Amino acid sequence: MPRIAIIGTGLIGASIGLRLREKSEIKDLEVVGADREFDIAKRAEKIGAIDSAIRDPRRAVSDASLVILATPVLSLRGAMADIAPALEEGAIVTDTGSTKTEVIAWAGRELPDENSFVGGHPMAGKTDAGPSFAESNLFEGARWVIVPSRHASEGAVRTVRNLVETMGATEMFMDAEEHDAYVAAISHLPLMAATAMFTMTRDSEAWPEMSKLAAGGFNDTTRLAGTEANVAFDIAVTNRTQIVHWLERYREALADLQERLSDEEGEDLFRHMAQTSWDYTSYREGATGREEIDQKASPMPRAELGNLFMGEALASKMRELTAASEERLRELDREERLTRRE
Amino acid sequence: MPRIAIIGTGLIGASIGLRLREKSEIKDLEVVGADREFDIAKRAEKIGAIDSAIRDPRRAVSDASLVILATPVLSLRGAMADIAPALEEGAIVTDTGSTKTEVIAWAGRELPDENSFVGGHPMAGKTDAGPSFAESNLFEGARWVIVPSRHASEGAVRTVRNLVETMGATEMFMDAEEHDAYVAAISHLPLMAATAMFTMTRDSEAWPEMSKLAAGGFNDTTRLAGTEANVAFDIAVTNRTQIVHWLERYREALADLQERLSDEEGEDLFRHMAQTSWDYTSYREGATGREEIDQKASPMPRAELGNLFMGEALASKMRELTAASEERLRELDREERLTRRE
Repeated sequence: MPRIAIIGTGLIGASIGLRLREKSEIKDLEVVGADREFDIAKRAEKIGAIDSAIRDPRRAVSDASLVILATPVLSLRGAMADIAPALEEGAIVTDTGSTKTEVIAWAGRELPDENSFVGGHPMAGKTDAGPSFAESNLFEGARWVIVPSRHASEGAVRTVRNLVETMGATEMFMDAEEHDAYVAAISHLPLMAATAMFTMTRDSEAWPEMSKLAAGGFNDTTRLAGTEANVAFDIAVTNRTQIVHWLERYREALADLQERLSDEEGEDLFRHMAQTSWDYTSYREGATGREEIDQKASPMPRAELGNLFMGEALASKMRELTAASEERLRELDREERLTRRE
Repeated sequence: MPRIAIIGTGLIGASIGLRLREKSEIKDLEVVGADREFDIAKRAEKIGAIDSAIRDPRRAVSDASLVILATPVLSLRGAMADIAPALEEGAIVTDTGSTKTEVIAWAGRELPDENSFVGGHPMAGKTDAGPSFAESNLFEGARWVIVPSRHASEGAVRTVRNLVETMGATEMFMDAEEHDAYVAAISHLPLMAATAMFTMTRDSEAWPEMSKLAAGGFNDTTRLAGTEANVAFDIAVTNRTQIVHWLERYREALADLQERLSDEEGEDLFRHMAQTSWDYTSYREGATGREEIDQKASPMPRAELGNLFMGEALASKMRELTAASEERLRELDREERLTRRE
């Protein structure tokens, strides 16, 4: 019976299991799972994410032709060392860790040469942890980065591509360093930013009152502060340099915005905000990069349309602002005259 | 026929209108609306948010006993000046603006003394703008801050409280300065942070690739960058000082986190992340402040439970980290010996 072993049956591992058991076209496939906490493997079994929970990871991987490591990043090395002696000849190993440079290096050291390692990173998830939150369509439509190790066989890469396809995700090949630099910006920085924002507001004296006013905006912006400490810590430790780089750039970007805020004229600030809102809407509508925007042949290029729209909005906003500041000047003038009279 | 006039029939104004027409217990109530862009008032009429769209705001407020100003903040002063001569004696004026100090001052200057102004701020909304996105239950369960002006009559305050109740929201009384300080932290800072993060990543050379990897985490964290420029700009300009204060504190919080990231031991960082994740989960589950947590009588206080949990998790994480760094030392040692041999 063809067997796939999932080591680590939390949210990600269990979601993979559910999907495999639901959609895989492999005949008579058996999906087994192990977890450092046996109870979690048992829960994954109970919800139908795996056929059976196995206490010993070595027993779980024996007879498996594909092993999926879905533990937090820092546990991956231990898991590799653990299962290495029990791997079948030719068994393929993949993972779902959030960073790749260290993981690829660990695989080179811990896994036998005859077992191809093909790293993976599904760009999906949620803050809720554990198999109870697993969904078979968690990866539907998501990108799944594939980072083959240098010695991975073609067959191994094909197997992992099939896995990604079964998950309903879109594959994306990258090298490990490239991957880690990109996710530092669009995944790890948001995690750190949310953490910093939440701890800062929560430590404020006014938090009991402020928190009552907090609504969707605050909750969305800080959602990642609820990331399981295990996951957040491992990301921080294995991608430290890249994250620090982006944290520094982010602080600069905030300083830049702060400077724009101090612009009394307001014209530059309004332009900046209109441009941001416009770009963001385009991004969420599917424009994924500057090239795509430029390539779009349309009677009036997007950028010009933007300028046109912005020109009118800007003019009207500036009139409003001028009126307000003229009024303020008149008031200051009046106040000054009153003061002189006193 | 009792009449309520809504000036500004975008997302907020139209949502108020929808709810009023659906739930108000005022017999024969007529809700009229005006908007700087008549087309938007017409659309609000079309979706049933108002009984009729009126081109001239002065005509809209004549005969109205309650006037709701739901324009972007910077337009409020102009709207007040505009309608002032046409207000009925005793008509009550309220607003829905995101900042309150300037708004209260404007009302004092622009509105006749016999018309009570009671400021309001519903803590709900979405990034999508315009009456097409209006929902009659947009404010259900949300907080609605009420900031009466100094000369507002008791009857006027009662009317606005009734309005808030009709909206399904929970009233919260504050003074204007207090309100502006709090929302700077939990509403305006998230907006600025999202703006800075999105513009920074979008300006990166790697954006075309990175954006493909961006998933729920990035999208939630940056969602507010899509805020209509009109709204974002007005908030920035009318609450500048408070926002700058929080931007500075936020940059410090990020610098602090960056320093923790550089901690090679890792123990402090893990503690910090575990504490954050724990606190965030408590917050989202309804713990709104330190007092509430402390007051909760339970066989084992929450904080201790946390320590217990964290103690175990920490010990296990530290073992992992120690193993990893010992292994790293052994590797460095091996590499050094190899280099020497070369």
